[in-house]
Amino acid sequence: MTVFQPVQQSRGDHDSSGTALELPTPYLLFVGDVRERGYAKTAFGLKDWAPDKCIGECASDPQAVTTGLPRMTPAEAASRGTRSLVVAVANSGGYIPPAWQPMLVEALEAGLDIISGMHVRLADLPGLAEAAWRNGRRLIDVRTPPANIPVATGRKRSGRRLLTVGTDCALGKKYTALAIAAAFARRGIDADFRATGQTGIMIAGGGIPMDAVVADFEAGAAELLSPDAAAGHWDVIEGQGSLLHPAYAGVSLGLLHGSQPDVFVVCHEPGRRVLLGEEEFAVPRVEEIVELTIALGRRTNPAIRCGGVSFNTSDLDETEASRLMAEEEARLGLPVADPIRGGPAFDRLIDRCLG
Amino acid sequence: MTVFQPVQQSRGDHDSSGTALELPTPYLLFVGDVRERGYAKTAFGLKDWAPDKCIGECASDPQAVTTGLPRMTPAEAASRGTRSLVVAVANSGGYIPPAWQPMLVEALEAGLDIISGMHVRLADLPGLAEAAWRNGRRLIDVRTPPANIPVATGRKRSGRRLLTVGTDCALGKKYTALAIAAAFARRGIDADFRATGQTGIMIAGGGIPMDAVVADFEAGAAELLSPDAAAGHWDVIEGQGSLLHPAYAGVSLGLLHGSQPDVFVVCHEPGRRVLLGEEEFAVPRVEEIVELTIALGRRTNPAIRCGGVSFNTSDLDETEASRLMAEEEARLGLPVADPIRGGPAFDRLIDRCLG
Repeated sequence: MTVFQPVQQSRGDHDSSGTALELPTPYLLFVGDVRERGYAKTAFGLKDWAPDKCIGECASDPQAVTTGLPRMTPAEAASRGTRSLVVAVANSGGYIPPAWQPMLVEALEAGLDIISGMHVRLADLPGLAEAAWRNGRRLIDVRTPPANIPVATGRKRSGRRLLTVGTDCALGKKYTALAIAAAFARRGIDADFRATGQTGIMIAGGGIPMDAVVADFEAGAAELLSPDAAAGHWDVIEGQGSLLHPAYAGVSLGLLHGSQPDVFVVCHEPGRRVLLGEEEFAVPRVEEIVELTIALGRRTNPAIRCGGVSFNTSDLDETEASRLMAEEEARLGLPVADPIRGGPAFDRLIDRCLG
Repeated sequence: MTVFQPVQQSRGDHDSSGTALELPTPYLLFVGDVRERGYAKTAFGLKDWAPDKCIGECASDPQAVTTGLPRMTPAEAASRGTRSLVVAVANSGGYIPPAWQPMLVEALEAGLDIISGMHVRLADLPGLAEAAWRNGRRLIDVRTPPANIPVATGRKRSGRRLLTVGTDCALGKKYTALAIAAAFARRGIDADFRATGQTGIMIAGGGIPMDAVVADFEAGAAELLSPDAAAGHWDVIEGQGSLLHPAYAGVSLGLLHGSQPDVFVVCHEPGRRVLLGEEEFAVPRVEEIVELTIALGRRTNPAIRCGGVSFNTSDLDETEASRLMAEEEARLGLPVADPIRGGPAFDRLIDRCLG
């Protein structure tokens, strides 16, 4: 993360801790002037997966979409204990239009830090760095990884780890990891969700954006993300990309090696035939990903095993989804479940992950 | 590469071409005040592999090691057509001590650009940016990748490609690629060596430092490095790391996918039992690397095949090396040769790569 702090001399200095920064919570969710739910999916994701971190929402336009959380001004949010405003919008291009900026300045004046996962750097917006300086607040860009990430050592760490992997991008690796961490917690198991992408980082309140790390330090960043822990503790790590993705496989492999998972869960979307945005490439079979993940993952954890398969069945009706998952469970000899649907299949998957 | 250019406003701007920058040649090799050959290995590597690019050498201390090239001042070198001074030293820490800096300023005054692969950025050295500005010269840091690298597309490119891969780091992937490119050229084949590390980039006069690329763009950088070419043309690409290296496998996989090689050669050092600097990890067997390289590489080139094995036998005598390579050739069913020793085994390896 890039953190602009008043004590630093130049904008764009990195925090130099070499650790995954913790974000200041709770949040006020800012939805700008966005009128379509799809563009505010960061806000909805935060409300769904981190309700205890969200005090309310604010907007620069009264007609903007609502998450259902109480709408309030930054000053009201601050008086209720909010520590930061999150730019909770995902527009194409990752920009912050001028019309949103007065409310960001208002938040700084109210004593909130600002957190953004947009492409544009907060300190590059006119007036924002100056307002942060004046109010002693921080501008936190979660797309920027921490500085001073070490090269990976491969040393075995204490505690247990689960990594979600995938046959493609954008099919549920984050949601699966969140659902598994929640299921572990319901069973009384001490577990942390470890975030590797911008939305996940906001949900978790910390993490490392793995796709933005310099390649030589990719596995080292993954080691930093899930440090030594108590023997019975589980880190449930959000996967990225796919080992058979022609652009992002290096990210996936660095994350796999550095995470040294005991268990992995393969995420897949039945019905998706070709890779998203890379239509010349067929989506690989689940078995291929299982085999490759074991062949490569055993390098840093010889005991690695597959805990099951997570299907994203959002395009199927209940009956069709159940039939398909039962068929695949029989064929693969592994639990197959949609964590959003839950049910006995998901319980079997959790059993197998823990077993 | 970071290029400091007088026309740019701020130090640290990247060249924005999105292509692998070509370095200004021929070079003057600067060895500083280094007295041990080992610390001047960049200079010796350049003299051995790019003699046509090297006009002479200079030193800040008359007692410094010599490569055997004529020693001259930057002004003399400039008068003979030299276009840049290369900091041809590899010290631990990658720093440039104050005692070297007057000669760097002298080179800028003489009209030469400066090229460095050290960790320290040239423009961060006192007085250097100012002297470059005053003389209209460039400060080129080859450790910094170009800006605007695109995400990989996986699109099949024209021309043929060979990639060297390895069982570990630092065992001959660059030398093997250079020797294969030279052997191809001797057979009248149109071939380019494609450099992926700092010394290789200086030898080739261009390239991309793959380990310094942001992980999301690793395969994209490899695509940029070996663009479309004539059907009979070969790019011989310097490999990095190893698919089974706990820290650098992501770099290796991104380079493999983006290079989409038709042929790969596995580089190995017999007798090395554990990874360099990662002593808890055994060096993998050659067969493991062959299998994994095919399993992963066929994603972007279904026709990928192994052209043979390159042994680094520098620690063995001639008889022992020959016996070992013959044994391994029989066992693996692949040509096994030491490209530095050459001979009929290396000819067989070249035959198989081309065949």
